[in-house]
Amino acid sequence: MNTFGKLFRITTFGESHGKAIGCIVDGVPAGLKIDEEFIQAQLDRRKPGKSKLETARKEDDKVEILSGVFEGVSTGTPIAMVIYNTNQKSKDYSNIKDLFRPGHADFTYYHKYGIRDYRGGGRSSARETAARVAGGAIAQLMLKSLGIEIQSGIVEIDGIKAQKLDFEYAKTSKLNALDKEIEPLQEEAVLKAKDQHDSVGGVVLTRAKGVPVGLGEPMYYKLDALLAEAMMGINAAKAVEIGEGVEVVHLKGSQNNDAITPDGFKTNHSGGMLGGISNGDEIVVKTYFKPTPSIFKPQETVDIHNNAQEYNLQGRHDPCVAIRGAIVTEAMMALVLADMALLNMGKKMEHLTKIYN
Amino acid sequence: MNTFGKLFRITTFGESHGKAIGCIVDGVPAGLKIDEEFIQAQLDRRKPGKSKLETARKEDDKVEILSGVFEGVSTGTPIAMVIYNTNQKSKDYSNIKDLFRPGHADFTYYHKYGIRDYRGGGRSSARETAARVAGGAIAQLMLKSLGIEIQSGIVEIDGIKAQKLDFEYAKTSKLNALDKEIEPLQEEAVLKAKDQHDSVGGVVLTRAKGVPVGLGEPMYYKLDALLAEAMMGINAAKAVEIGEGVEVVHLKGSQNNDAITPDGFKTNHSGGMLGGISNGDEIVVKTYFKPTPSIFKPQETVDIHNNAQEYNLQGRHDPCVAIRGAIVTEAMMALVLADMALLNMGKKMEHLTKIYN
Amino acid sequence: MNTFGKLFRITTFGESHGKAIGCIVDGVPAGLKIDEEFIQAQLDRRKPGKSKLETARKEDDKVEILSGVFEGVSTGTPIAMVIYNTNQKSKDYSNIKDLFRPGHADFTYYHKYGIRDYRGGGRSSARETAARVAGGAIAQLMLKSLGIEIQSGIVEIDGIKAQKLDFEYAKTSKLNALDKEIEPLQEEAVLKAKDQHDSVGGVVLTRAKGVPVGLGEPMYYKLDALLAEAMMGINAAKAVEIGEGVEVVHLKGSQNNDAITPDGFKTNHSGGMLGGISNGDEIVVKTYFKPTPSIFKPQETVDIHNNAQEYNLQGRHDPCVAIRGAIVTEAMMALVLADMALLNMGKKMEHLTKIYN
Amino acid sequence: MNTFGKLFRITTFGESHGKAIGCIVDGVPAGLKIDEEFIQAQLDRRKPGKSKLETARKEDDKVEILSGVFEGVSTGTPIAMVIYNTNQKSKDYSNIKDLFRPGHADFTYYHKYGIRDYRGGGRSSARETAARVAGGAIAQLMLKSLGIEIQSGIVEIDGIKAQKLDFEYAKTSKLNALDKEIEPLQEEAVLKAKDQHDSVGGVVLTRAKGVPVGLGEPMYYKLDALLAEAMMGINAAKAVEIGEGVEVVHLKGSQNNDAITPDGFKTNHSGGMLGGISNGDEIVVKTYFKPTPSIFKPQETVDIHNNAQEYNLQGRHDPCVAIRGAIVTEAMMALVLADMALLNMGKKMEHLTKIYN
Repeated sequence: MNTFGKLFRITTFGESHGKAIGCIVDGVPAGLKIDEEFIQAQLDRRKPGKSKLETARKEDDKVEILSGVFEGVSTGTPIAMVIYNTNQKSKDYSNIKDLFRPGHADFTYYHKYGIRDYRGGGRSSARETAARVAGGAIAQLMLKSLGIEIQSGIVEIDGIKAQKLDFEYAKTSKLNALDKEIEPLQEEAVLKAKDQHDSVGGVVLTRAKGVPVGLGEPMYYKLDALLAEAMMGINAAKAVEIGEGVEVVHLKGSQNNDAITPDGFKTNHSGGMLGGISNGDEIVVKTYFKPTPSIFKPQETVDIHNNAQEYNLQGRHDPCVAIRGAIVTEAMMALVLADMALLNMGKKMEHLTKIYN
Repeated sequence: MNTFGKLFRITTFGESHGKAIGCIVDGVPAGLKIDEEFIQAQLDRRKPGKSKLETARKEDDKVEILSGVFEGVSTGTPIAMVIYNTNQKSKDYSNIKDLFRPGHADFTYYHKYGIRDYRGGGRSSARETAARVAGGAIAQLMLKSLGIEIQSGIVEIDGIKAQKLDFEYAKTSKLNALDKEIEPLQEEAVLKAKDQHDSVGGVVLTRAKGVPVGLGEPMYYKLDALLAEAMMGINAAKAVEIGEGVEVVHLKGSQNNDAITPDGFKTNHSGGMLGGISNGDEIVVKTYFKPTPSIFKPQETVDIHNNAQEYNLQGRHDPCVAIRGAIVTEAMMALVLADMALLNMGKKMEHLTKIYN
Repeated sequence: MNTFGKLFRITTFGESHGKAIGCIVDGVPAGLKIDEEFIQAQLDRRKPGKSKLETARKEDDKVEILSGVFEGVSTGTPIAMVIYNTNQKSKDYSNIKDLFRPGHADFTYYHKYGIRDYRGGGRSSARETAARVAGGAIAQLMLKSLGIEIQSGIVEIDGIKAQKLDFEYAKTSKLNALDKEIEPLQEEAVLKAKDQHDSVGGVVLTRAKGVPVGLGEPMYYKLDALLAEAMMGINAAKAVEIGEGVEVVHLKGSQNNDAITPDGFKTNHSGGMLGGISNGDEIVVKTYFKPTPSIFKPQETVDIHNNAQEYNLQGRHDPCVAIRGAIVTEAMMALVLADMALLNMGKKMEHLTKIYN
Repeated sequence: MNTFGKLFRITTFGESHGKAIGCIVDGVPAGLKIDEEFIQAQLDRRKPGKSKLETARKEDDKVEILSGVFEGVSTGTPIAMVIYNTNQKSKDYSNIKDLFRPGHADFTYYHKYGIRDYRGGGRSSARETAARVAGGAIAQLMLKSLGIEIQSGIVEIDGIKAQKLDFEYAKTSKLNALDKEIEPLQEEAVLKAKDQHDSVGGVVLTRAKGVPVGLGEPMYYKLDALLAEAMMGINAAKAVEIGEGVEVVHLKGSQNNDAITPDGFKTNHSGGMLGGISNGDEIVVKTYFKPTPSIFKPQETVDIHNNAQEYNLQGRHDPCVAIRGAIVTEAMMALVLADMALLNMGKKMEHLTKIYN
């Protein structure tokens, strides 16, 4: 169950404080130029320790490609990538060996498996998302060659909302902020929470431009359903919206329907899909990240013997996981769209005759 | 892509105005008593035409089991169920043969497949969800035998929120309302929209009690991710929340973390899962349904030749799809939990030795 | 696990003496003309009771399409087909309610599931293969439109081998014999065994012409591997050969290699594939069917209480299952090739740009 | 398509002359002691260069575990293993850059993907099977803890058949021979072919002891079908037999049926399964390997421009791939049985109540 996707597939491995993390990307069409610099650049955007808004753990996150690329081009065989862990401080975790950190997966992993690698959360650590970003970058390369671009940014932190969406600005912002004017307030909220040994939640908006009509597979592999799965499966995600999202409960049908004209849809309340299939408009998804469970205030918990314990956090942690989470949402959206693009290939006879005749 | 689930699997078929709809449920463990009355009762809760809050289309939705059950008990072989369509009025749709209804999947199906069964939306009609309810009912039977119960109800319509959650009341309410006091206001909103030839959105809360710790598969088959996929894949769903959902952006980590005590979790902000694995608390999911796209006001659209057209709806339609959608969310949650319960069986050696020694 | 295929998928249901058997065919590209007469014709070739070489059970095997076809053409949605059972004589089986028939799946089903539908073998009956033939016929229609033709026939019965391969003759032969001259000897062997209350084994050769280069997915969905799975999964199959098959142990590399010339391969020892991928030559597969386990001689067995019993067969049975098995091998090969044709669509960027640009 | 298995899953990567090969093993139950020495020992049995019966390429095949094991025990998370290539001589292959070697996958890879890593066959090289052996070894560890043992050996080379089956002897034989008396003749055949710049085929017998009743999933994941897929998917395999295999065509039903007694089956013509489900007897499979296509005689072929060319082999090659193939069959059988053991866990309610109550 460590594989995501049906035709464009990523299988990841690795724990926060193990030797390495990585992934195998399977199903990449042959003949795609693999731009290693782009892959590394995406990893660099996600890597920790770039500012005081993030955890102090320093990881280079240098990716090495082990297979599937020949003379710079994909061969159609699986592309394995590995990122060695270099900055583990496993001792930080000796005090939680027998303890369940509130808001973390310690409790559930222990009970599910009867054993857990407690160092830094082991497999449940968000460190695993580096592998997704590496795999997602290859999906992005494929999509780019089809004219599809994916962008992301922070729309809300601690209840403070962006008023405009400037994706180009977000790329340069250390907060991945979409609104330059609002960014200082959002940053202040993060730092204030950090000072108070607490954490804040945030919301990421992710969009795709240039998506052709027809991606998404009814009935149980719809584009919206898969994006919801992809985003909700990211660590700390608690809600996913497509298009108007939760706002639909305040709209009438006559307001929410997107009128169709010969020049396209007049509005995009739908977020770019109808019946789970892309309609050619921009794909728009929002993901809500909970405040980081790792806080430096004492917390009530139990140990593996179910005895009450007070838990005092050590280690290094992000005060707002949504910030770096933005890059992960890009990767997940790319993986979904790449998979959908491949799945759609055989959906009409006209396509088959184009390829086989 | 008409199959949902990995081990407990449902494959559905059928169009709104075809001969029949139905499903094959595969992976049902042998030895489960199949209570046909319960399956029919769930279908009866979902079927249309029960009140003026719903479409006037009358369907008996009588289910017939064709296989997989012997002397009232599941045999471990696939259970096929069929529901014949009886009350189609396909003529209602002759005027949309070449037209794309705004807010519907007509546009995307046509472009994806190059052909569509336009009668009542064909495969994209919510009529398909009857097959899910039939399959979900078998999942519910399996879960019940393990002590797991699933419930649902309306928490919000047109912005009017329930103040309390009375799942027993919801079962008797024609609105599936969770709050008896608020129900008249919600009902009024639906009827008012209907009078105005318009429609309203709504929110369904779905929960499961008695879920053991350990269900959900990291990394890419997490319980929250799968519930998000399951709910977002229901017709008209536009947002899914787990536990606090969108509210997490207003909470600090110290508020959102659920403290752990020897008697269990003190709060349930998480909605019953950590790291994508159930924690033994109640599973809580909210699904936002958009206002029905079928409204009786004239709308702007195009035909298949991309000429501008005015569209005037005919046919029979629900003014608020969330109401009957509640039953579908139960089915989807049941399908997810049944699958997770089977997947979890082989997750530790201790389980294997219990079965094989 | 009642689904076969990844993109072109068939899910079957039904028991020998239940109400009906049938299937859902998912993944059929939209825009394929569905020739119902061809589907029925394939079922008619497989149906029992056509000659004294077969079981006396008479089934019309009339197929009804319930969904997925609109105005004679596939819509890209699942095609459900149902065949009602009409000629069950379940009473024939009351004496085996608690008994395990040697050579049949009674013993293993009972121990695996703890319950079994004993009437005619229930799900394990070869009657299920009618559903495969129906689904396979749709695959054959898709392949035909791409210029691929599948044929089959009997090459050996009870050790008596065909000396030539006349697939056109096989279609008219009640034995599906490939060699008209040898057919009388093979027929005699079947009838002799029948007279002696015994049964014989047989070998079916199945081939595909017009297969393009490139079908088959390394590493674990190779064309040869999938054909082996497909054929070995047919009731009573015990060996599968590709090309030279078991003969390769008598050949040197210099004899077995197929030399390549500008006009194609000089020989076809490989059976039309290299590295699990079709090479453009004819696909050639042989399947060995064991003698029918249902024989009219007394046999030693046990009952469900593990008491020794003598078993005396009643009912109606084929003396040589290979004969009707030939039609099933065509269906299975068609399902494999249709799946491979769809999977191959997204294997190079050149294909993607053809579809999306 | 580089993943094998449904619950116990192996995903492999790597090319013959790339940086590394390896695999991710997913679905290993938590709590299994991971004996690294056993994994290495299996790799050592398969590795090349151990005798003059094998290729002269020397690879240490040292495996490194990157994840999924904590304090010597599986944690339920994916186990990644990597084997670095050390003894590549890629220059040996410069002369085949534009040439298709007869009997190899060069022709089909080139046409399928439009690009190929020609060094040593790239992904299509049997070197990939080292990754299977590593993954299969973990499956074997799991099976051992359930009392299941897998063994293999050579039964036939170049038409010379073993007269007895001594699996213990095979482990010590450099030919993996099952019959010590016959071994010198088989060895002579291999060396004679090598001297003549040719190669020979061989047959491997693989068996499993201690398999419980009930493994294998009807209808399309039967034990025999999956073993056929697993074995036929090994490089150079051309036929697979279960139990009596091709001999069934010479037997009557009364001879081939295995009588059942209170003490078990009297014979094992079936090879340990009925209806695709294990019956508790020994699992017996035979795999036929073609003579190595790499021979040192001049061969007729074409280049990528379809011009006729004479091909003269360079490099280092096995004269009989069946010998080392034996170890790979063990790995593949282990992967199938481990998967079946996990799949069977949820097949009856009795099992579920054992785990969840």
